[in-house]
Amino acid sequence: MRAIARRLYGAVRELPILSPHGHVDPRLLLEDAPFADPASLLISPDHYVTRLLHAGGVQLGESGVGQGPLPEPQARQVWRRLCENWKLFRGTPVRYWLEAELAEIFGVDERPSAESADRIYDHLAMRLADPAYRPRALFRRFGIEALATTDDPCDDLSAHRALAADPGWDGRVVPTFRPDRYLEAGEEGWPALVKRLGEAADVDVADFSGFVGALEARRRYFIEHGATSADHSHADVRTDPLSPAEADRIYREALAGTAGRAETIALRRHLLLEMARMSCEDGLVMTLHPAVRRNHHTPTFRSFGSDTGHDIPLRAEFTDALRPLLERYGTAEGFQLVLFTLDETVFSREIAPLAGFYPSVYAGAPWWFLDAPDAIRRYRRAVTETAGFSRTSGFVDDTRAFCSIPARHDMSRRLDCGFLAELVAEHRLEEDEAAEIAVELVTVNPRKAFKL
Amino acid sequence: MRAIARRLYGAVRELPILSPHGHVDPRLLLEDAPFADPASLLISPDHYVTRLLHAGGVQLGESGVGQGPLPEPQARQVWRRLCENWKLFRGTPVRYWLEAELAEIFGVDERPSAESADRIYDHLAMRLADPAYRPRALFRRFGIEALATTDDPCDDLSAHRALAADPGWDGRVVPTFRPDRYLEAGEEGWPALVKRLGEAADVDVADFSGFVGALEARRRYFIEHGATSADHSHADVRTDPLSPAEADRIYREALAGTAGRAETIALRRHLLLEMARMSCEDGLVMTLHPAVRRNHHTPTFRSFGSDTGHDIPLRAEFTDALRPLLERYGTAEGFQLVLFTLDETVFSREIAPLAGFYPSVYAGAPWWFLDAPDAIRRYRRAVTETAGFSRTSGFVDDTRAFCSIPARHDMSRRLDCGFLAELVAEHRLEEDEAAEIAVELVTVNPRKAFKL
Amino acid sequence: MRAIARRLYGAVRELPILSPHGHVDPRLLLEDAPFADPASLLISPDHYVTRLLHAGGVQLGESGVGQGPLPEPQARQVWRRLCENWKLFRGTPVRYWLEAELAEIFGVDERPSAESADRIYDHLAMRLADPAYRPRALFRRFGIEALATTDDPCDDLSAHRALAADPGWDGRVVPTFRPDRYLEAGEEGWPALVKRLGEAADVDVADFSGFVGALEARRRYFIEHGATSADHSHADVRTDPLSPAEADRIYREALAGTAGRAETIALRRHLLLEMARMSCEDGLVMTLHPAVRRNHHTPTFRSFGSDTGHDIPLRAEFTDALRPLLERYGTAEGFQLVLFTLDETVFSREIAPLAGFYPSVYAGAPWWFLDAPDAIRRYRRAVTETAGFSRTSGFVDDTRAFCSIPARHDMSRRLDCGFLAELVAEHRLEEDEAAEIAVELVTVNPRKAFKL
Repeated sequence: MRAIARRLYGAVRELPILSPHGHVDPRLLLEDAPFADPASLLISPDHYVTRLLHAGGVQLGESGVGQGPLPEPQARQVWRRLCENWKLFRGTPVRYWLEAELAEIFGVDERPSAESADRIYDHLAMRLADPAYRPRALFRRFGIEALATTDDPCDDLSAHRALAADPGWDGRVVPTFRPDRYLEAGEEGWPALVKRLGEAADVDVADFSGFVGALEARRRYFIEHGATSADHSHADVRTDPLSPAEADRIYREALAGTAGRAETIALRRHLLLEMARMSCEDGLVMTLHPAVRRNHHTPTFRSFGSDTGHDIPLRAEFTDALRPLLERYGTAEGFQLVLFTLDETVFSREIAPLAGFYPSVYAGAPWWFLDAPDAIRRYRRAVTETAGFSRTSGFVDDTRAFCSIPARHDMSRRLDCGFLAELVAEHRLEEDEAAEIAVELVTVNPRKAFKL
Repeated sequence: MRAIARRLYGAVRELPILSPHGHVDPRLLLEDAPFADPASLLISPDHYVTRLLHAGGVQLGESGVGQGPLPEPQARQVWRRLCENWKLFRGTPVRYWLEAELAEIFGVDERPSAESADRIYDHLAMRLADPAYRPRALFRRFGIEALATTDDPCDDLSAHRALAADPGWDGRVVPTFRPDRYLEAGEEGWPALVKRLGEAADVDVADFSGFVGALEARRRYFIEHGATSADHSHADVRTDPLSPAEADRIYREALAGTAGRAETIALRRHLLLEMARMSCEDGLVMTLHPAVRRNHHTPTFRSFGSDTGHDIPLRAEFTDALRPLLERYGTAEGFQLVLFTLDETVFSREIAPLAGFYPSVYAGAPWWFLDAPDAIRRYRRAVTETAGFSRTSGFVDDTRAFCSIPARHDMSRRLDCGFLAELVAEHRLEEDEAAEIAVELVTVNPRKAFKL
Repeated sequence: MRAIARRLYGAVRELPILSPHGHVDPRLLLEDAPFADPASLLISPDHYVTRLLHAGGVQLGESGVGQGPLPEPQARQVWRRLCENWKLFRGTPVRYWLEAELAEIFGVDERPSAESADRIYDHLAMRLADPAYRPRALFRRFGIEALATTDDPCDDLSAHRALAADPGWDGRVVPTFRPDRYLEAGEEGWPALVKRLGEAADVDVADFSGFVGALEARRRYFIEHGATSADHSHADVRTDPLSPAEADRIYREALAGTAGRAETIALRRHLLLEMARMSCEDGLVMTLHPAVRRNHHTPTFRSFGSDTGHDIPLRAEFTDALRPLLERYGTAEGFQLVLFTLDETVFSREIAPLAGFYPSVYAGAPWWFLDAPDAIRRYRRAVTETAGFSRTSGFVDDTRAFCSIPARHDMSRRLDCGFLAELVAEHRLEEDEAAEIAVELVTVNPRKAFKL
């Protein structure tokens, strides 16, 4: 089985990386400045790393969270904390990724520990000063063919524009339309967001149809700048329609601050359905990442903001929630809907059955907490028997840790090849078929699912 | 481990097939006419096949869905579509079943593809013209000892009667009582169904007790024709009792079309409890297949009817839902309740604990989307540690694809032997015990669980 | 892989047993009387055993349930029933435990069966008469370093006190505070319990603050007698706060028997939050075992009482339910919260993400129905990738079957070593790291998670 897996992997290991969903800042590549220090490159902005340190007793502040590039003594101290607590990461993918980054990108060949911390820090700092370790050089070295960022609808996308216009740059970096905040009319500050959206779109947003028009305008703007997807993450994926009058009434009340919680939720659900309609019209792939309780620990949120390691998953439900959407658009020409989850129970129960019938639906790759060896295997075992391989999205790294991109894609490739090798060894596939699938999973599938 | 598995499998591979739950039409065996064409035999009536083609872009009409036997050019065209899209099925059990059917029943030794489609079609068409490929000949060749069909309570079971009376036929084909539609008082057309039921039973159904009496009468009729089970599939399995007065009131209002949705659901739950009472009295095994949203895509339902590939599972709950039923009948002499699920989460959490205490409860075999190698392994791993082997139902094929019956049973036998071999290899069982279990799972368990 | 696993296991197999949660009666060790008979030692008090016999047709009365030590003919008859039905346990951990107990503790070398039943019975009865098989001798032979019992808040802990004062005894046996019944104001008999609690604590419990004070006093009493944990098991783990006035109002109405069901549930949820506050103050570890429908079959409960094999798990939810508690106390110095579940779906979705952020939260070991080889593997595979090893509690046997303690701990050690060996074989860990983890899981983790 290992021999088969190695043969399959041999054919995909060097293929270019398609990254259809992630959180790298395009300014990184535009400016191409040297990375400031090892800690703010590898630790402080990556909540995968800081959350486990936090659980192990290292306060977020001690990991440099929210502090940007750090003065050398502090950066070194943050780095030491990680190395001293290296044990915490045993058995986690964060460990594999960091290990792979250290070894393969930076040529570090010793294990992080209290004892080795300073030596490794010095080695990394030296490398970061080398032009070969600047963002663009790494982008090329990583073999990234296309990279999607995640962007606010009001973003002017100037970094994307400048990058595309830069004669010294031939990489492909595309924005992704992520309107979550604009759909949550019950959240503090929403009226101000609406105002900003109206300004960005140059559309009067006094009524609901104006608001919808502004969203449509911004989507067009994103498409003009290369976007292929719109990404959505709410507590649930219900898509129950409202009448136009009802939607308009709630919209106005929400702007006035008088709408109730049930009403603003109803408005969000209606808007998600509207987003699917827009996707049918403008062609943006719709991707759903639902069912996470964001900022679970309010005191931490107040001190450090969002994306600081305490978003905790919730039970998900797709079958009934998406029915209004799929009854309308599920077989619409060109419509594509990629379903992600942190609740594994829906893989075999809901996502695979939906993706195994609706031509629009793709089973999204294992995401976040599930982007790890055993979870990826469970995903393939849960989804494949009902939906095959063609209905899966291909890997997404979803990362803000730029240097982890190659390690993540490599891990996914190894695991898929391992899974395929199992099927071959059990006579469930022929090896030529497995080889074709292995290649398609990293070339055809993401390109197709995300219209890259 | 493979060597142990092979020894175990050697002892069961040729054993006769017991099929206690499925959807083969008894007229097929009564009439024993040659199958019309390869497409309407293997593709168009089998939603396992047409759903993935649909997801892959082949419209249901292009797969011949709902069109019965097809003229030769169309049948050939449907067959071509399948072969061209053979890739879609990689990694799915449909692929193993079709492959096994083609190779073992029809002697096809090449892989379906655009290029081979016509050759294979011609080969199959030639075979279907051969008397050795008529339904009765195949039934014998498959080694089917008993086959249960699924039938409407108003069915006069004339096909079963004629088959049993046919001196040229010695197979055992028994009906199964499936009253779902009669319990859903909130569905369109229910009053007409009630009327029909009253006529079939020759019972006055003006009030609720008459309706219950009519159901009882039809169950007796089924039992007289060999039925051993009553099968039920609703959105949930709640069994909350109503008072007689309340049941009667809702029943009358539902007949008059004035009952609310909550009321008709309450009536259905009460009726499910009544069904358990009847099972205690008349001895029919009660089997539950709950928690599927039927006909998820209404436009497809309107064009092609039900069972066309878009029934999507829902979350299931048994512990509280079945408590009223089990408090009353859970330890009743002779009562048997087989619990199936498409929501794997209940295997270890609810079904195995229930089957591990109540002498009436059996953990039903993996069903539908879960009737596949990895899912079957998950079932055994989730259920066995709490309920052992004796509390499991044995395999059910649940198929309307007649030719897939041997492949499905064979796959189940291989997988169970593989699982048992693992236990032996890990010293969790002795091999003589595993051998006994392997045989019992295909002989004793289904016979006992379904009173066959 | 097996070779690695054996090396790892070699280093942990002889390590002392820490049993931080279980149901052994301390009087057993205080009195140190010979065990009465094989049946009341190994069968009748152990609902793991009697439930499967019951499912297989052996009435609970025939297994001696609720009858205490049995006269010889009946004990022998109960033992025969088990041996005749030995097949029922194939593939279950009960089988491994009993087999291990028979072989390793009692030197039985033949398989239980109708034929061997009497011989084995005689052998066991002979051994039980030997002083080497008395409770204290076995405790030492098992290598138990610390054993936690589970005790009612009103218990005077005299057995613990006497045992600690006994000069002939040097084992460590600590009580655990288990106040469940006192928190369920909607249950029959609750006012009498409150009265008893007030008396035990010598506190006036006329109002809610008095009741809370009484609980605090009893916790202090338990701590003085060595307790390190408070254990809680309710239908859910919601922790929504009430205002003091609201809590007091419901408390008084519940005492008067006029509180509604929703109100007594609200009071219980508020009290669970209060329990966390007390844990922050007095340092008792808080352990949660939620989401089981206790005494599912009321007729059996009426005849045989609780803990008789028909507690059936429910769906669990932690993310939102624990949010009020974790917002307040999740990062409090010294607070520790161990989360157990019978609903595996929360391992990867909720428990591991919570334990991977909150320094207070530990992912509890697989419990009850999940304390079995395949379930334990699923636990490690689901939890480790998000929370690592350090955030897991270490094994708990949770048993009332004293003789099964070594077999259970041994099984857990073997399985963890097997899992670690897999990680090493897949290059996800170095072997020296795996060896360190294997030892820590049975020494550091339980000691730390339960403050033992």
